[in-house]
Amino acid sequence: MAETLQQEKFREQIDRELNALDFSNTPRELYDPIRYVLSSGGKRARPVLVLMACELFTDEPEAALPAAMAVEIFHNFTLVHDDIMDNAPLRRNRATVHEKWGNNVAILSGDVMMVKAYGQIARCRTEHLDRVLTVFNNVATQVCEGQQMDMNFQDCTHVSIEEYVHMIELKTATLIAGSLKLGAILGGATDEEADLLGSFGKNIGIAFQLQDDILDVYGEEGKFGKQVGGDIVAGKKTFLMLKSMELADEGDKKVLRSIVEDEGADSLIQVATARDIFDKLHIKEVALEEVRKYHNAGMEHLEALKAEPGKKVLLKHMAEKLLNRQI
Amino acid sequence: MAETLQQEKFREQIDRELNALDFSNTPRELYDPIRYVLSSGGKRARPVLVLMACELFTDEPEAALPAAMAVEIFHNFTLVHDDIMDNAPLRRNRATVHEKWGNNVAILSGDVMMVKAYGQIARCRTEHLDRVLTVFNNVATQVCEGQQMDMNFQDCTHVSIEEYVHMIELKTATLIAGSLKLGAILGGATDEEADLLGSFGKNIGIAFQLQDDILDVYGEEGKFGKQVGGDIVAGKKTFLMLKSMELADEGDKKVLRSIVEDEGADSLIQVATARDIFDKLHIKEVALEEVRKYHNAGMEHLEALKAEPGKKVLLKHMAEKLLNRQI
Repeated sequence: MAETLQQEKFREQIDRELNALDFSNTPRELYDPIRYVLSSGGKRARPVLVLMACELFTDEPEAALPAAMAVEIFHNFTLVHDDIMDNAPLRRNRATVHEKWGNNVAILSGDVMMVKAYGQIARCRTEHLDRVLTVFNNVATQVCEGQQMDMNFQDCTHVSIEEYVHMIELKTATLIAGSLKLGAILGGATDEEADLLGSFGKNIGIAFQLQDDILDVYGEEGKFGKQVGGDIVAGKKTFLMLKSMELADEGDKKVLRSIVEDEGADSLIQVATARDIFDKLHIKEVALEEVRKYHNAGMEHLEALKAEPGKKVLLKHMAEKLLNRQI
Repeated sequence: MAETLQQEKFREQIDRELNALDFSNTPRELYDPIRYVLSSGGKRARPVLVLMACELFTDEPEAALPAAMAVEIFHNFTLVHDDIMDNAPLRRNRATVHEKWGNNVAILSGDVMMVKAYGQIARCRTEHLDRVLTVFNNVATQVCEGQQMDMNFQDCTHVSIEEYVHMIELKTATLIAGSLKLGAILGGATDEEADLLGSFGKNIGIAFQLQDDILDVYGEEGKFGKQVGGDIVAGKKTFLMLKSMELADEGDKKVLRSIVEDEGADSLIQVATARDIFDKLHIKEVALEEVRKYHNAGMEHLEALKAEPGKKVLLKHMAEKLLNRQI
C-alpha cells in the first residue's frame, strides 16, 4: 500500500536523523538520558505527520525535516518531565529517566531536550523561521497548560466532559495540529492552508486521545503495551469514567467515585467493577460515537483544503490508521 | 553619574515590560508562580547588559528589548529548576517556587518560562532571528551543562581549579556573554564585534562568580542577602575551598575535606574553622588576584572593540560595578 511505503520512508528518515544527532559527550549524565529516550522507538507519528503535511505542498518534504525533529524531541521531552510528575516507573516497557537516573537528571536532561528541539527549529529555512517559531511556541505553551490541567483534575471532585476535552485538546491534540501546521508552512502553504490542516489535526488528535481512553479498558492485553484498565487503577478521570459518572444512577456513581478516589483497593476488582458499570451504560459505544464525531469534523477540514487528492488521501489513511488501533 | 542613569532607565524599562507581560490566566497554578518569580526583583543585570550592548551599535537600544526579556525570563527559569535540584527553600528572601507550590508545579512552570523566553526571541527582528536564535540555543545548552557539572562536583572527591572554572564559565559566564552578544547582534554588529563583546562578557562573568565565592566568606552579613559562609556549610566546592585544598598541608586538607563531606556538623564552627585555614593561606588575596586576572582579560577584549568611547566606558563601569560589590 502506497501510504505505508511513504510513512515507512519518512519514519526511517527520522530514525536516521535521530541516530545521527551529534550531542556533546559531556557531561555524560546529561546526554546519556537523551540518547536513551530518543532511541526507545515509538511510532514517530508526529514527525511523520510533519513530513506528510509538507509533501502536500511541495515535492521536497525534506524541507520540513528540522521541524519534524523538533516535534519529536519536544514530544519526548514532555514524556520525561510528565513521567517525573506522574511518578511513572515505566515507559515503552523500559525504566523512565527519573527512575534510572534520578529526578534531578530527569529535570535537567528534559530541559536540554527542549533546547535541542529549538535547535532544530533554528535549522528551518530563514524565510519561514518567524512563523515556524511562533507556531512552535504556541504549541509548547499549550502542551504545558494541558499537563497542568491534567494534574489539577486529579484533585477535582467534578470535571465536566467539556473541561476534559479542552484538556486533551491542549495536552495531546495541539501537538498533532502543530505538527501538520509546521509541515505545511515549510512546504510553502499560506496561513489559511496551514490553519485548515491544523484544524484537521486538532480534531484527529482529540479523537486519538478518546480512542486511547477506550483502548485502556477495551484494548487487547499486551498488544497495546499497557496493562488493561491501567487508567481505572490509577484513578484517572478519562472520558469513559467522566461520562459514566454523568450517566450512572446514584448507586453506581458512588461506586465509581470510590474507585477514582481509592488507590489502595484490589486493582482487578476495581477494573471489573468499573467495566461492569461502563458496559451497563454502553459507554464504549458512546465513546466510539464521540471518536467518530471528531474524526468526521477533522475530515471535513481536510476535504476543504485544496491540494492534490492523491496526497490528501495519504493523510486521510494515516488518520484512519491512528484511529483504527486494536479495539 | 551618567552610567547609573542609563542603567536605571534600562532597568525600569525591563521592569515595566516584565510587569506588562500578558500571560494566559489559566491554569492559574502554572502562571501564578511565573508572575511570583518575575516580580521578585533582582538587579536585572543581564537584560541591562543586552540593552547596553545594543546601544553600542545603534541609537535604538529598544531593538534588543525582546532579547533582554528572553534572557531575564530564561535566567529566572534556571533559578526555579536549580532550586528544585538544590532543594533550596529560599531565594531572594522569599520561599522558592517548589517550596510554595510543590515540585511538579515548579517543574512545569519552569518549562513554560523557558517557552516564554523563546516567545520573546520570536519577537526579535526577522532579519536577525536566525543568528539570535542560534546564540540563544547555544547559551541555553551550556547553562544546563554547567548546572549538571555543578551537580556532578558534589559527588566528586577531587575537582581541579580548571574544571571548576570551566563549570562556572558554562553555568554563569555564558549567559552574561550571550546577553552581550544578543544585544550586539540586534544593534547591527558583525559576528566579529559580537564575539569580542562575548569574550568580554565571558571573562567578566567568570570574575563575577569568583567574586561571589569570595563574598560568601568575606562579605558583610545581611548586605549580600545570604548567610555568611553558606557555601562552606553546604559543603560547596568553591574556588576558595578548592584552592585551599590544593595549597594546604596534609592536616588542614583533612580538616577541609571533613567540612565538605560532613553536612551534619555545627555550622558556625565549620565556617570559623574553614575561614582560619583560608586566612592562613591568604586565599582571599589569591582569589582576588584571580578576579583581577579575568577582569583584565575581559577589559582587553572590550578595548579591542571599535566603538564610541563614551558608550564603551559605560560598559566598563557596569563591569566594575558588578565586581566591586561589598568586600
